[in-house]
Amino acid sequence: MSRERLIVIGGDAGGMSAASQARRRRGSDDLEIIAVERGAHTSYSACGLPYLVGGAVKAAEDLVARTPQEFERDHDIRVWLWHEATEIDVDKRVVRVRDLAGGTERVEPYDHLMIATGAEPVRPDLPGADAAGIFGVQTLDDGIVLDSYIGETKPRRAVVVGGGYIGLEMAEAMVERGIAVTLVEASPQPMDKGLDPDMGALVAEAIERIGVELRSGERVTAFEAGDDGVVRAVVTDRSRYPADLVVLGLGVRPRARLAREAGIAVGESGGIVVDRRMRTSAEGVWAAGDVVESVHRISGLPVNIALGTHANKQGRVAGINIGGGYATFPGVIGTAVTKICGIQVARTGLSSREAARAGFEIVTAAVKSTTRAGYYPGATWMTTKIIAERRSGRLLGAQIVGEEGAAKRVDVLAVAAWNGMTVEEMTGLDLGYAPPYSPVWDPVLIAARKAAEQVAAADG
Amino acid sequence: MSRERLIVIGGDAGGMSAASQARRRRGSDDLEIIAVERGAHTSYSACGLPYLVGGAVKAAEDLVARTPQEFERDHDIRVWLWHEATEIDVDKRVVRVRDLAGGTERVEPYDHLMIATGAEPVRPDLPGADAAGIFGVQTLDDGIVLDSYIGETKPRRAVVVGGGYIGLEMAEAMVERGIAVTLVEASPQPMDKGLDPDMGALVAEAIERIGVELRSGERVTAFEAGDDGVVRAVVTDRSRYPADLVVLGLGVRPRARLAREAGIAVGESGGIVVDRRMRTSAEGVWAAGDVVESVHRISGLPVNIALGTHANKQGRVAGINIGGGYATFPGVIGTAVTKICGIQVARTGLSSREAARAGFEIVTAAVKSTTRAGYYPGATWMTTKIIAERRSGRLLGAQIVGEEGAAKRVDVLAVAAWNGMTVEEMTGLDLGYAPPYSPVWDPVLIAARKAAEQVAAADG
Repeated sequence: MSRERLIVIGGDAGGMSAASQARRRRGSDDLEIIAVERGAHTSYSACGLPYLVGGAVKAAEDLVARTPQEFERDHDIRVWLWHEATEIDVDKRVVRVRDLAGGTERVEPYDHLMIATGAEPVRPDLPGADAAGIFGVQTLDDGIVLDSYIGETKPRRAVVVGGGYIGLEMAEAMVERGIAVTLVEASPQPMDKGLDPDMGALVAEAIERIGVELRSGERVTAFEAGDDGVVRAVVTDRSRYPADLVVLGLGVRPRARLAREAGIAVGESGGIVVDRRMRTSAEGVWAAGDVVESVHRISGLPVNIALGTHANKQGRVAGINIGGGYATFPGVIGTAVTKICGIQVARTGLSSREAARAGFEIVTAAVKSTTRAGYYPGATWMTTKIIAERRSGRLLGAQIVGEEGAAKRVDVLAVAAWNGMTVEEMTGLDLGYAPPYSPVWDPVLIAARKAAEQVAAADG
Repeated sequence: MSRERLIVIGGDAGGMSAASQARRRRGSDDLEIIAVERGAHTSYSACGLPYLVGGAVKAAEDLVARTPQEFERDHDIRVWLWHEATEIDVDKRVVRVRDLAGGTERVEPYDHLMIATGAEPVRPDLPGADAAGIFGVQTLDDGIVLDSYIGETKPRRAVVVGGGYIGLEMAEAMVERGIAVTLVEASPQPMDKGLDPDMGALVAEAIERIGVELRSGERVTAFEAGDDGVVRAVVTDRSRYPADLVVLGLGVRPRARLAREAGIAVGESGGIVVDRRMRTSAEGVWAAGDVVESVHRISGLPVNIALGTHANKQGRVAGINIGGGYATFPGVIGTAVTKICGIQVARTGLSSREAARAGFEIVTAAVKSTTRAGYYPGATWMTTKIIAERRSGRLLGAQIVGEEGAAKRVDVLAVAAWNGMTVEEMTGLDLGYAPPYSPVWDPVLIAARKAAEQVAAADG
């Protein structure tokens, strides 16, 4: 059998995990591997960008897990930097590739094609949105550009548009750089997509505490630029905020145009449809990462969740299958954690609103408890909220906000939800207890108990 | 119906949780509740004693969750302090109670009896073991006595006998009090009962790092006392260690004599046998806490595990049932966490040796990984070990040792084991990821992946 060829489009987590796994199973004699990357970097941590901009991480290179040189040297994976895939022909099994530096195009044949084009920041279709000084932050190159823009122009006032994870993390990063920040969010409170309103309110308090001017429930209507073409203010339906710098935190959407134009099935979430082995609708074409849609194990609905952890897992699954092995991706349950303004914010499963949208009737219980035994030095507070199905009592989701121990504690709830546990069953869980780490009744157990009482009361 | 009477023997977690829950469901007109307590305190945190002795917790009262006065005032539960139950007649349904202050005895009738007598430290049957200055630490009164002994006699050299949780925590506490500490442990490494040898070795390094002289594999043969009757040295099969103070950390055993003498069934673990509702073999007699034996959900074997978290849960279950409700205790899986010498130590399920003893053939995988994204400031190391059943790949147990994030991370593994997950399934878990809290592949996922590879290799 002659040597086959795998072309990977996109050199970050999903694509390069697939490439590495395929190489582990098939040597260079058997499989040629080429990665096509629009930018200058491979396998970097996009989640680390706020820490680069904020200054906690000193150099952009620190965010790179593996360089193109390492892929070439250690795995015989060739990386074409500054190259963009512009067209796929799934019948002829070829990709059109443009050399962004030279401007030339060529057509490259493949046996296996891996689409890992990631996500792109949502840019609002508003007057002035193309002004200079307005940044989306998605790739490492985006982060480097923003970082040096701040260093060179020394902005005094920034407006962040959108109060999701990225918006909040970027707001904090800019406060750390000494910039006065206004955050404009159209919803009634930040993190409106991920958290219930009562939990989002805790996040709002935290960001105001570090001096961010929070403008919730306001909608941006335009951006104003000066004669130099640089943004100078953000206009909303209620006010106008002067700004030397604007960061967009309006979320991301799958960069699926290339696949759609090739006739590859794209789902209602906007992500490429894949089966459990990460195969797309086209023969020999695979996909992974922010560009695909996944099954939410609790709602059963297709979702697109842009997170490095999924991209790595999915890329690994695709690579094992391309390499002739067998692996499947089991779906997601919406776990996400972040650190914002000194507090930890975590969620898993469905929020109250997502649960309602999926057709569930729910009961909820929220408890405030100490993070350590009350007498142990340094104990602070955390709030744990549980969302359970009415009647069945099945755990549907959970959210935790607190000063310590919140982020990874949500994993306990994630595993419980993954296994379809009821809140009643959860009350008996054998969780670790020692005074430095939790009260004798872990917050998760107290919340489960309260939720179980709610379930009984609702239908008792 | 005339008023019934519940007598609770033992005023700590198990007993008082039961009393409180029974009261929630049955008013004072319907149920009289009396708690018989040998000491001076109710509902305290025995797990907090090392922090009292070490000085992190300033006052013994800080460890008390609820005082006798609060029980009387808020719940109409009478507490007889300094009273000891000396005999139970399960046919006549009476308890003989001795007033330890006055020396008198009386016989008290009950309708429901709750046995929550806890555990007692194992005292070695060795020459000189009754010398003054040799302490077991189990009750709050024990802790107070040791604390003031240290304050008054200002010991310079202490020997801790036994390298389990309590021994290690007490060794560290005495180092914090400025005392030179030698720890003598008969096993090859500390925490031999809870941890595999490779993981115990990490704990040994940590305690030596803070200056504890660790003598593993040595057996104590005698204690020497001076003419004043106070201990002055500990003799082992290899050496002799001068000591002004000795703390016993040889573990505890159920204080089940009272129940056994009453003809109540006691299991091979030494704990009182109870059913799922915490009923003993005698009509109307219940038990909870360190004195009972529980079913280990993974081995299926009866075990006695002395931990406040079980005592609280079991007491609550007993109290709900005594109060006319319905609740069951689902068993344990051996989760335990502690903080020792700046490191976090955690385990759940079965150790390799326990698994072998229960008849399992196993594969194991241990991984060393960073506690945060490698580039995130403050990232340190943790080691995660997984024990899985051969062929089935079912998660049987796990251990984590690390500088941060180890203790409560084991809860993720505890919930996975609780639900009978295989390591292969676990590789897909949707765990939280953000750079301050974990690498993009959580250590739990990496360990599960390695274990899954071991399972495949062993029978592939």
